[in-house]
Formats: sequence, C-alpha cells, structure tokens
Amino acid sequence: MSGTHSLDVLIQELRRLPGVGVRSAQRMAFHLLQHDRAGAVSLAQALQDAVAGMHHCALCHTFTEQDLCAICSDPLRDASRLAVVETPADQAALERTGAFKGRYFVLMGRLSPLDGVGPQDIGADELLQRASDGVVKEVILATNFTAEGEATAHFIGQMLEGRGLTVTRLARGVPAGSELEYVDLSTIAHALVDRR
Amino acid sequence: MSGTHSLDVLIQELRRLPGVGVRSAQRMAFHLLQHDRAGAVSLAQALQDAVAGMHHCALCHTFTEQDLCAICSDPLRDASRLAVVETPADQAALERTGAFKGRYFVLMGRLSPLDGVGPQDIGADELLQRASDGVVKEVILATNFTAEGEATAHFIGQMLEGRGLTVTRLARGVPAGSELEYVDLSTIAHALVDRR
Repeated sequence: MSGTHSLDVLIQELRRLPGVGVRSAQRMAFHLLQHDRAGAVSLAQALQDAVAGMHHCALCHTFTEQDLCAICSDPLRDASRLAVVETPADQAALERTGAFKGRYFVLMGRLSPLDGVGPQDIGADELLQRASDGVVKEVILATNFTAEGEATAHFIGQMLEGRGLTVTRLARGVPAGSELEYVDLSTIAHALVDRR
Repeated sequence: MSGTHSLDVLIQELRRLPGVGVRSAQRMAFHLLQHDRAGAVSLAQALQDAVAGMHHCALCHTFTEQDLCAICSDPLRDASRLAVVETPADQAALERTGAFKGRYFVLMGRLSPLDGVGPQDIGADELLQRASDGVVKEVILATNFTAEGEATAHFIGQMLEGRGLTVTRLARGVPAGSELEYVDLSTIAHALVDRR
C-alpha cells in the first residue's frame, strides 16, 4: 500500500481505537473504502457530532448533551441514594435492571496509580461534595469487582467515613442462573461469607 | 446512556467497522470522548480524506491517490509477470518479501457466491484484458489458501486457459521456521505432493 498517503493515515488513525492493532486497522480501512464509503462518511460525522455535542453532566459526570443528564434532571429519582459507578456503560447496566431508582455519580474511570489515574481524575472532590449535600443518605459503591474497582471502592469508602452516610457495596455472590460446580472458588467463598 | 443522542449514534456508527460489536463500540466511544477527543477529530478527518482521495488504480485496481499506483507507474517493474492478489494487504505482504519484481492485479475481494460476490465484482473482465495485453507472459495466482481463495484461483485459472499464458499458483508447503510436529496434516500432505 505504498504511495497511498491518506490510506496510511487512516490506518494509523484507526489504531487509536482501543483493541485495534495494525491488521484490524487495515481490515477496517479496506472494508470502509471498498464496501462502505457512505458509512465512512457518516462515521466521520458521528465522531465530530459526538465530540462537539457531548460533555459531562454537571452533577453526575456522565456524558450528556444538556447541562444535566436525563437521570439527574428527573425529579422522580430518589435523591437520597447515590450509586457510584465507573463508566456510563456500567450505569446503563444498572439502569437495565430497573432495580435502582436513585441517582448516580459516574467516576469516568477508576483509580489506577500505574496509569497515573489519581483521585482528581475520577472526580473525588466533586463526589465528596455531592455526597455531603445533606440530601444523600446512602452511597452505594457499584464499581467493578476487579482489583482496580475494589481499590477505588475502598478509597471512596474511606473518604466518606465519619460523615453520617450509609456506605454500601454491591453484594458479591453466585451469579443468577449459574451452577455452583462451574463458579470460581473465590466467588463461592465470598457468597458463603456474605450469606443471608 | 439514555438521552445522549449523539453518543448513541456514534456507538451505532462504530459497529459498522468489521469485528466491532456493541460492547467494543461502547468502549471505543467512551475512550475517544473521555481520553482522546483530539484523536476522534483527527480520525474523522482521516476518514473523510481517505474517502475523498482514494480511488482504484486504473491498471491494477488497488487503492491509490493518483491515476496509477506507485507499482504500476514504476518502469523498473517486470511487466511480463502479473501477480493476482485478493487485497492491498496481501499485495503489501508480497511486497515486503522483496521476492517479486513484477506487477499486480488486485481483485479487491474474492469470489463468494453466498455473499453475492461474482466475477464482475473482482474485475474478472479487466483482469482478462490486462493478461491479454501481449506483454504479460506469466500470471501468478496469489489468492489466499482458503476455500474462497482457492475457488477464485481456480476460476481465474480456467478463464486464462488456452491464451498462451503461463499460469502458476503460489506453492503450498510447510511454513519457514516451523516444526513438522506442529504443522497441520493437510499442509504436510500438500508439501509431500508438491515436493521438489
């Protein structure tokens, strides 16, 4: 593909997408140019529109096109419960359950000292301020059950200690519909400890 | 992620990339908006530039920004040998070997009746015309060794029969540097048949 400057640039640019190496980028560029040029143009437009239109909700930090996101501006949501999640995708997963009627704080990441992600990058100060507004009674730590998610939950739990708030964590346990035989030992051990 | 129209559009648009499902698309959109907004803008620009600037080489059908690609316009390449490959990426792989000094015809695909890809979609008529120009003496079928690539090579071989051309196929055999113990049976069987 020598002498094809704008194709090389496109392949390089596609590699900035997470999980896309040089071969995937080549395949993507080839597919778009050979089979879906209209799609390439509309993808370009969608990228520009999202960058121009999307910013962070002033209250919960998730992506929104308004000042406040749909959940933060919904007066029917229970403002006394605040779920802390890592990403909008995690928030969407909680929303799909329909089991949570409170509000959210979206960290837009997780603590990761090795990657240089510290408390200021996950909006720790804003979360502290939000949780101390006098309306929030319970903070539900719904970060992921990964090492970094657990560390983030631990950090936030410590930060909120002694402020008269109930701080809870999503229960660990055996996933619904699963057979014990196929569940990993650590999960079973946690489910035993947290039995009710 | 409700109420975030341009984000939903972006996720949908990213799914048109080959190999990208809804979760990958969400991760890509989140990464770009949260960590790489300048990158999203330059990716959009690269998409538009490539669509506007890239078209097919008049002779070999690969992508180029000029009328003729760099290889077709290089007078030092041996015009009597024509390698037929499926994609620009395959052509690039052959070029990296440095072992081929002839010219190319890039099918920009492979015969795939189930996907509605017929001879006209791989430029069969143009290939026939090119191979019959009186200069080409040997056509090297360098399509992939997949079912569709083999069928495409077979079809082109038949098409070029009886025209005074030498039609060859890349040798099948044991990959360089590999141990027989770990090579699949079909490859070893072909290597035995094609022994020299």
